[in-house]
Amino acid sequence: MSLLVVGSVALDSLETPFGHREEILGGSASYFSAASSYFGAPRVVAVVGEDFPEAHLQFLGSRGADLSGIARRPGRTFRWKGRYEFDLNTAHTLDTQLNVFADFQPRLPESFVDSEYVFLGNIDPDLQRAVLDQVRGPRFVACDTMNFWITSKRESLLRTIRRVDLLFVNDAEVRQLSGEHNVVKAARQVLAWGPRAVVVKRGEYGALLFAGAEVFAAAAFPVPDVYDPTGAGDSFAGGFMGYLARSGRESPEVLRRAVVLGSVLASFAVEQFGLDRFRTLAAEEIRGRYAEARRLAQFEDLESDLFAVG
Amino acid sequence: MSLLVVGSVALDSLETPFGHREEILGGSASYFSAASSYFGAPRVVAVVGEDFPEAHLQFLGSRGADLSGIARRPGRTFRWKGRYEFDLNTAHTLDTQLNVFADFQPRLPESFVDSEYVFLGNIDPDLQRAVLDQVRGPRFVACDTMNFWITSKRESLLRTIRRVDLLFVNDAEVRQLSGEHNVVKAARQVLAWGPRAVVVKRGEYGALLFAGAEVFAAAAFPVPDVYDPTGAGDSFAGGFMGYLARSGRESPEVLRRAVVLGSVLASFAVEQFGLDRFRTLAAEEIRGRYAEARRLAQFEDLESDLFAVG
Repeated sequence: MSLLVVGSVALDSLETPFGHREEILGGSASYFSAASSYFGAPRVVAVVGEDFPEAHLQFLGSRGADLSGIARRPGRTFRWKGRYEFDLNTAHTLDTQLNVFADFQPRLPESFVDSEYVFLGNIDPDLQRAVLDQVRGPRFVACDTMNFWITSKRESLLRTIRRVDLLFVNDAEVRQLSGEHNVVKAARQVLAWGPRAVVVKRGEYGALLFAGAEVFAAAAFPVPDVYDPTGAGDSFAGGFMGYLARSGRESPEVLRRAVVLGSVLASFAVEQFGLDRFRTLAAEEIRGRYAEARRLAQFEDLESDLFAVG
Repeated sequence: MSLLVVGSVALDSLETPFGHREEILGGSASYFSAASSYFGAPRVVAVVGEDFPEAHLQFLGSRGADLSGIARRPGRTFRWKGRYEFDLNTAHTLDTQLNVFADFQPRLPESFVDSEYVFLGNIDPDLQRAVLDQVRGPRFVACDTMNFWITSKRESLLRTIRRVDLLFVNDAEVRQLSGEHNVVKAARQVLAWGPRAVVVKRGEYGALLFAGAEVFAAAAFPVPDVYDPTGAGDSFAGGFMGYLARSGRESPEVLRRAVVLGSVLASFAVEQFGLDRFRTLAAEEIRGRYAEARRLAQFEDLESDLFAVG
């Protein structure tokens, strides 16, 4: 089924302990599109400037993405510059140049308005709803956000959250958003606002899915070589939503598999700089790592005569 | 089979966001004994002072522990005072009084020297080996440690590690010990020193087991009400080793179940202050939460016709 993504397409400059890169392809919509493309062709809504390299669009197009919703506007493309320390866990923003992204007014091509699955990437929650307003009766809507919007546009963000089926957040964000430190209570608070599911991303530790009364915990795939954590969250969302749109169902079993596929796509994304891993990643590698994730998490029932004392 | 534990028996004073307690039963050997007691009677080697309340020993004895290795010495019992902030993740030590623990020279009663399973709690690595020297041909030895020993007695600690079958460490400790930030590489480094298994405890995120080439990832049981994280690691080790000694095998399947039981025992321990949860915890609750942990981590194979493109 059709899958729409709105988010950023950017030029990222990155410093990590393993090297640096200048103005490589980045942005939430780019990572999401590349990760979801294994399951179907995403429809991308974003904006780039006059300076955006055609080769980047060709790459996303070669993955099957429908780029007719990417507007090219006068001016420069959104740029982000960040540094990761030794632990690779925290990105320190060195520079943000919004450029054409500052005036981004997402407009859906007519061919996109019937999209059944929608991912609202981490942009201004006002714009997230402006996208939703243009989609006719979507079947399943998910959104991402970040601490900046939780702090600066809380009421608008809550209006968006009330309209989505699923929220992607990380540990710190769900705590900040709910005012609850305990992640179980924090997720329940979000569910009380309307979404039927919350995915709490925990980086190298995995992810938790709260869907109604159901809880699912997936360990992150342990990756020995992490080069660049940029885009891990959007790759997670891409794998998750790509699989959901492909399967056309949202049963508890499907949501669980989607979480694991999200983790798997994220685990590939961090193995190389930027989107480079997606240039060579084959579907069979995704299937193989999913099977490894099953073995990784596998354990059997207890014996019946186990306990010595009550 | 028989299970020996050496560690501290202490009086803890705790401050948490949910309240405080003065001089309650604590110490690694206490938590380990209570948690392991569901699977069999642990043999405890420790030291207490003249002031140690008889009621605490009665409690441990009521759980079946063999306390004939607990020496009562002139002087005061080991005391630890700590505070947890809002996030409950980090213990800030406010005061440590070693008292009789400063001169602790563990001596095994003759009835303990044939112990088959041994847990060397977090004490001076010299003393850990002094205990090992007194055990005749143990079947399976595990040890715990902490950043203090990694920094101050690294060579001695490495000598201990070379003699054990399994090391329990947390994330930060395994990184510090190995000099590797990546936890997969860090664990492999420890395995190269001799142990056949490493359990990396990750607090509220779960645990990883590295055993030879095998990796197992267990999510922590998500607990909505965490009151006091003290002793979670020792409760984990107690559940793990208690189950191992009960089963008498160390197959990959048994080690995996042991990790989950460790997580389950730890998840109970943190629900009340000190060892209080073990005063009411029933074996059937452990079995019930283990079954929940299975449901929590359960997901199915992928469909065969999944991918849109290679």
